[in-house]
Amino acid sequence: MNEIAKVENGDPVEGGTRTFVEALLRQQRKDFSLRPEFHLSDEIYRLDIDRVLMPHWQCVNHVTAIPNVGDYIVFHYDRESVIVVRGADNEIRSFANVCRHRGSRICETSGHARGGVLVCPYHAWSYGLDGSLAHARMMPRDFDKASYGLTPIATKVVQGLIFVSLSDDPLGFDDCEANINATLGVYGWADAKVAHQSSIVFSANWKLALENQVECYHCAPSHPEFSVVHGQSTASEKKLIAQMNAKADAQGIRVETRDHWALAALEGQEQAYSERYPMSANACTASKDGSPLGPLMGEFKQYDNGMAVCYVGPMNHCLSYGDYGAIFRYTPRSVSETELAVVWLVRGDAVEGKDYNLDDLTWMWKVTAAADKKIVEENQLGVSSRFYKPGPYALPIEEKTVRFTEWYLQSLADAI
Amino acid sequence: MNEIAKVENGDPVEGGTRTFVEALLRQQRKDFSLRPEFHLSDEIYRLDIDRVLMPHWQCVNHVTAIPNVGDYIVFHYDRESVIVVRGADNEIRSFANVCRHRGSRICETSGHARGGVLVCPYHAWSYGLDGSLAHARMMPRDFDKASYGLTPIATKVVQGLIFVSLSDDPLGFDDCEANINATLGVYGWADAKVAHQSSIVFSANWKLALENQVECYHCAPSHPEFSVVHGQSTASEKKLIAQMNAKADAQGIRVETRDHWALAALEGQEQAYSERYPMSANACTASKDGSPLGPLMGEFKQYDNGMAVCYVGPMNHCLSYGDYGAIFRYTPRSVSETELAVVWLVRGDAVEGKDYNLDDLTWMWKVTAAADKKIVEENQLGVSSRFYKPGPYALPIEEKTVRFTEWYLQSLADAI
Amino acid sequence: MNEIAKVENGDPVEGGTRTFVEALLRQQRKDFSLRPEFHLSDEIYRLDIDRVLMPHWQCVNHVTAIPNVGDYIVFHYDRESVIVVRGADNEIRSFANVCRHRGSRICETSGHARGGVLVCPYHAWSYGLDGSLAHARMMPRDFDKASYGLTPIATKVVQGLIFVSLSDDPLGFDDCEANINATLGVYGWADAKVAHQSSIVFSANWKLALENQVECYHCAPSHPEFSVVHGQSTASEKKLIAQMNAKADAQGIRVETRDHWALAALEGQEQAYSERYPMSANACTASKDGSPLGPLMGEFKQYDNGMAVCYVGPMNHCLSYGDYGAIFRYTPRSVSETELAVVWLVRGDAVEGKDYNLDDLTWMWKVTAAADKKIVEENQLGVSSRFYKPGPYALPIEEKTVRFTEWYLQSLADAI
Ligand code: FES
Ligand code: FES
Ligand code: FES
Repeated sequence: MNEIAKVENGDPVEGGTRTFVEALLRQQRKDFSLRPEFHLSDEIYRLDIDRVLMPHWQCVNHVTAIPNVGDYIVFHYDRESVIVVRGADNEIRSFANVCRHRGSRICETSGHARGGVLVCPYHAWSYGLDGSLAHARMMPRDFDKASYGLTPIATKVVQGLIFVSLSDDPLGFDDCEANINATLGVYGWADAKVAHQSSIVFSANWKLALENQVECYHCAPSHPEFSVVHGQSTASEKKLIAQMNAKADAQGIRVETRDHWALAALEGQEQAYSERYPMSANACTASKDGSPLGPLMGEFKQYDNGMAVCYVGPMNHCLSYGDYGAIFRYTPRSVSETELAVVWLVRGDAVEGKDYNLDDLTWMWKVTAAADKKIVEENQLGVSSRFYKPGPYALPIEEKTVRFTEWYLQSLADAI
Repeated sequence: MNEIAKVENGDPVEGGTRTFVEALLRQQRKDFSLRPEFHLSDEIYRLDIDRVLMPHWQCVNHVTAIPNVGDYIVFHYDRESVIVVRGADNEIRSFANVCRHRGSRICETSGHARGGVLVCPYHAWSYGLDGSLAHARMMPRDFDKASYGLTPIATKVVQGLIFVSLSDDPLGFDDCEANINATLGVYGWADAKVAHQSSIVFSANWKLALENQVECYHCAPSHPEFSVVHGQSTASEKKLIAQMNAKADAQGIRVETRDHWALAALEGQEQAYSERYPMSANACTASKDGSPLGPLMGEFKQYDNGMAVCYVGPMNHCLSYGDYGAIFRYTPRSVSETELAVVWLVRGDAVEGKDYNLDDLTWMWKVTAAADKKIVEENQLGVSSRFYKPGPYALPIEEKTVRFTEWYLQSLADAI
Repeated sequence: MNEIAKVENGDPVEGGTRTFVEALLRQQRKDFSLRPEFHLSDEIYRLDIDRVLMPHWQCVNHVTAIPNVGDYIVFHYDRESVIVVRGADNEIRSFANVCRHRGSRICETSGHARGGVLVCPYHAWSYGLDGSLAHARMMPRDFDKASYGLTPIATKVVQGLIFVSLSDDPLGFDDCEANINATLGVYGWADAKVAHQSSIVFSANWKLALENQVECYHCAPSHPEFSVVHGQSTASEKKLIAQMNAKADAQGIRVETRDHWALAALEGQEQAYSERYPMSANACTASKDGSPLGPLMGEFKQYDNGMAVCYVGPMNHCLSYGDYGAIFRYTPRSVSETELAVVWLVRGDAVEGKDYNLDDLTWMWKVTAAADKKIVEENQLGVSSRFYKPGPYALPIEEKTVRFTEWYLQSLADAI
């Protein structure tokens, strides 16, 4: 626990830890999977959280999850908890979910601030939606309420997506904002609404979860449901891309792509990445058989039989189909636990039961996320063995996994 | 685990630990809640158990929990287990629940020693109720049975309450004994009997549990059930006290108060504290509506609409109403787990179902303990955040929390 | 986690650990139970696994558990997982259950390799039954498949029993092989078959489990079911042995005994031990009342009212009765968790329901193992107390426990 004091004081990394990490970094072989310690060591996990991931941004949800003044989301990250609340001015603000009196969590779960105040359950200090301390019972007359507002957390809203960073000095967000606008904006995400959300916990290190997320080498063997409707990483991919582009062009639609991801991030900016992928022949969207699941979104007047992905930083992956969107957000819970939250979006005026069916809408990514959980957990078990030796990534199909790990290793090297 | 060897050898605190703790003590701000490390660090938890709490006393139960010769209680404390047994001479003695052969626990749960012996379940070494080794099967002729009795644990019985200390050199108990006699004695606890006992575990450090126990700043928001019948910390408290005193005087009853608590403990003595509080107007006792729950106890001939508290050391809080008593005992289980045991006492000759109803008797403190569990656990979650900053205690209403933490900090400073 | 890197690099034991262990070894008193740190310390547990136990052999199962080509067993040991598979040539081979691509576990549970290949669930690399990499999808042309076979694990089959060692340099097995042949061979284990297998986890250190396994001081108080049919450690043992020997001689049966166990192991060889014990008068086998449970095995034409034990290394104990066998295998799971697997064998041509009844067959050792679990767990709780002091072993009846601990202490001393 000594590291708590150290991090709060901004102390440098302790000598023994630095020596250990430097040795590992030297031993790590290029284009080979990570050495096991990166997934198993508690020391490295603390560095991951406190130094590698800290300046990055996390996608909390879509603004329609908190439609009314006073609605709030409780967002968990490692051992942190954040309140994301819609203010009286309709602005979204975030605060550390920690009372300034004796430190109780203020909000246990997402909810609504009755009377426009967030009331601590312990001694009832109450905070305005702007985080200011509104009332502190029985405190002495000379108590300076103004000094005891909730700690604000950096927050951005772009195309309806809410992002927070727990750092005092987060990465710049301009490039991500431009990227989101140029991709998810075309799909009308600002006017979308949350149709469903769910969350599962992988018993695995966050990096194994992300390695899995960014490659489609495993799609064919592990995700038959995905593979039947997606054209990505198939033999006919090129032809399908051409068809997709033609169908988009015919509607005057242009979804930008960008690769400022991993080590290609702009200096001082959060990583921004977007790409277009084709569906398989005749598949309109990611449903069981490729047939539509809801009303078309954004600028789309007909399906282009393609999709877009938009990455925001290392941990947030947005997928956009013609008729729905899915946000994937990974959050570390501990060295060997990682949460995957999925949020499904549909057009803002779509009516459940009439315009879309929830079971059909969520089927594909529930099935796929459950399969990924199993895969990643078996991977964690495997790398825990003394017989695990880092193996060669399959190139080029795993090149994004290579890029992810290179970003990680460089960030860790920079952090110590 | 190195610390096991160290503590057994009475070694001084290891250098790194001392430096760490000294730095924390320097950083701790007066009249502000404790820095997070005090609640989260495994190193500090071991110091808490092995050095801060060791010489103190714990209230195990009331003697009526073991009414017959050979009856015993198994009492757990951190990773320790103690047998508290009634001997053939009706004396209460305590022993480490560890066989002197190969170290098995002897008694799994509270029970009765059949045939007047405690038999180890492993190889059947059997011990008398005085802890002596009575029989060890098949041991060689030269085996010195007299050297292998159970390890005795310091034990006191006052007003029917059994106290143990795991230390070789426990704090003096005279002041506590006098205090208990002068308070609980008046309420007739020596002639009381156990009506019920229960236990819940808080997922929180023991100090957060105790901070909560000793202040009533949270009573109004968190304990509406408590607040409706107690006059403590209310606007009319003074007036209610005067009424209470008058009603007690009229019966010739005098319940002493004493404040040798926390740093005010007498030199070398366990902390002793007692205080009187009024019930709210017309409330006789701590029941749903203030109406009596059982026959009057001790010297009381009628309700004085007041109550007494009697603290024994930092961890045991006895509450006495005219018709029932409640013992609250906190025991640490781990750095982030604390057990709260509650024992309810009624007059010794009261008959359940006739003189008192168990659900009614236990309702108030079951409801209140459950609420406290929730509060304290949210507090633990909050102080685990990097955004937690110690905040100002609300004075004067939280002054006992201040005193508790000042005692703790001084004890820790003395221990390293 | 630093120790992962160290062990992989074959580094010497870290200085602080060596000093700690050396101090403990000095403090350990001869003929007294182990100091608590040996059962509680994470550091010592890592030494136990990585250095003390590593060169030893574990009995996985009997070959009839994988009767067909492609059948495999997944065997767990500490955090390791091993695939034991029957090849196309009917040879039994073992491999680390870790994919050479990115390290996923390949087989989750025991099963059958369809199409003669073990397919990784992640990206479908597939391995032959000989461990060679048969196919790796989409790998570049210059990829050297021959370098990426599964890591082989040392494997022996003797009298139908499969043994593995996770070490690169396992102990010699010749003496064990001779011992097994001269004991279990007489009982026909090569022609036996698995009738049942089960497994329970003791919440205790592996050494407490083994201490219990090798002594019968606890049999009388703790195992009444065992004691009623076994003559071991009873007053009439000598007479019963004479009767047993006469009955065996009359059939021309000679079961060898050998004591190369614990520190008496031959230089560089795995420990080999065998002994004969009598059943109680009139008891044929270890059943509820001593009556037979199945057809006679091996060379036996009638019951000799005796049994044989055969130990292979410190962790595997085979018991052989006239009509059935039982393999006991202990595997550490963590510092405070140990698995006991039991496999029951009957004659290879015996038919369940006709020749033997499964409930009757397994009753004795299910009852006994469950009692041992409870005993050993209470022992673990006891030695966790600060009041535990190592106590004297009861000699001579606990002499095998003494030998076991002396072997352990010497092995640990050699390891650091
Ligand atoms: S901790 Fe929030 S009001 Fe006291
Ligand atoms: S451990 Fe108690 S008799 Fe052996
Ligand atoms: S990890 Fe096994 S094929 Fe990729």
